[in-house]
Amino acid sequence: MQKIVIIGTGNVAEHLSDSFFKKGFLITQIWGRNKEKAEILAKKVHSESTSVFHLIKKNADLYLLCISDDAVSEIVQKIDFEPSIIVHTAGSLPLEILNKFKNHGVFYPLQTFTKGRELSLKNVPFCLEANNKKTLTELKNIAGEISDNIIEMNSLERKRCHLSAIFACNFTNYFYSIASELLAEKNLSLNLLKPLIEETLAKATSITPQKAQTGPAVRGDWKIINKHLDELKNEDWKKLYSFVSESIFNYHKR
Amino acid sequence: MQKIVIIGTGNVAEHLSDSFFKKGFLITQIWGRNKEKAEILAKKVHSESTSVFHLIKKNADLYLLCISDDAVSEIVQKIDFEPSIIVHTAGSLPLEILNKFKNHGVFYPLQTFTKGRELSLKNVPFCLEANNKKTLTELKNIAGEISDNIIEMNSLERKRCHLSAIFACNFTNYFYSIASELLAEKNLSLNLLKPLIEETLAKATSITPQKAQTGPAVRGDWKIINKHLDELKNEDWKKLYSFVSESIFNYHKR
Repeated sequence: MQKIVIIGTGNVAEHLSDSFFKKGFLITQIWGRNKEKAEILAKKVHSESTSVFHLIKKNADLYLLCISDDAVSEIVQKIDFEPSIIVHTAGSLPLEILNKFKNHGVFYPLQTFTKGRELSLKNVPFCLEANNKKTLTELKNIAGEISDNIIEMNSLERKRCHLSAIFACNFTNYFYSIASELLAEKNLSLNLLKPLIEETLAKATSITPQKAQTGPAVRGDWKIINKHLDELKNEDWKKLYSFVSESIFNYHKR
Repeated sequence: MQKIVIIGTGNVAEHLSDSFFKKGFLITQIWGRNKEKAEILAKKVHSESTSVFHLIKKNADLYLLCISDDAVSEIVQKIDFEPSIIVHTAGSLPLEILNKFKNHGVFYPLQTFTKGRELSLKNVPFCLEANNKKTLTELKNIAGEISDNIIEMNSLERKRCHLSAIFACNFTNYFYSIASELLAEKNLSLNLLKPLIEETLAKATSITPQKAQTGPAVRGDWKIINKHLDELKNEDWKKLYSFVSESIFNYHKR
């Protein structure tokens, strides 16, 4: 049975510990700056917890850093033993940040995690990287237990995935927020747009988003665009509507 | 058997005629400015076609205007008989544009249509409006044959749906285009982001997009934002990234 120590208590820590636990891995310890948070998370996966750094167990097979990007360097400095394997889970950080350790890698789940939300990791792409073959093989085996979607990727590719995900996930979600507010003003629900949004995604991945583009902006239909700008009262959204429309028009003209 | 005449040959004409044909309606004629286009579409649904306006058959039960918003007024002027029921299919046009006819309405499918793409209309919301009860009932019956998602909606509500759909469909699709180009530069595929995008939508419709927002912008993580801005070479996308990030930050701060 493989033993895992989780460093961190945020959304990624929660989802990874839960998935590993359900697959029969032994989460031997969860470290968190905040004692209570670490305890709560540890309890869920029948694990021990600590907030004291030098009490971290040294005999685990894998140390998973599930902390904010900014905290990684500081934590790395504090680890004064040689972990069997240590990985970080950040899209934007290079492999080299863990250079001080003999066997190190990256274990990046390309997904959006929200605390308390049940989510299967089975289809989630795990982007893996390691500083040696043996470690990479080991990471592939471990990730393969919780996901069917394992991808080897270097730090530059992973960084690019992360950047793309900002557009495809964070920014589109913000546009769902805007749509939902606009609809709510007329007592309409965002669910009304669900079939449309689903088809938008289905088209994008089957015929490419470039071929799938519809709407007034790609047609250069300024009459409708101006009607919409008149309807928008929020100045920020007005600017956004105008700027994105021009960008779509120029992109498809080129 | 109900007889339908379709005015127009674009994406909406193609999808509606196909769906009605498959449900056993009689498409008796398709009119198109372009003779060949009308012929091709008519052939698919065992219908006749014409490009000559005064040859439009006068005995159909329903006339579906599937033409660009700009063309509706002109076509309305040209129709010199009293159709049994006539409807337009545009999100942004008011019901009143068809005032000259005794029984008129709106038959707006809230979906993104791309020519040649197979698509079931079963879950597509049909937003209906009519100038009298009998016509509305008739439209509900007809729409109910091709979709399970029938909604009565006035012109202002429909206009709002259309505006919201620009954000939730057209703009998000453009962001998929950006993501796909960024990924392609590193020989990576947009399919990599599919589980992420699916979860983004699932979260938005179950816990609201406001609660589902993740990423550097909502956290105010300017360090990552600046890294991403450095990575973006396209000036338009750089501006877009920066502007949307600030807008997300301000929206969630308020």
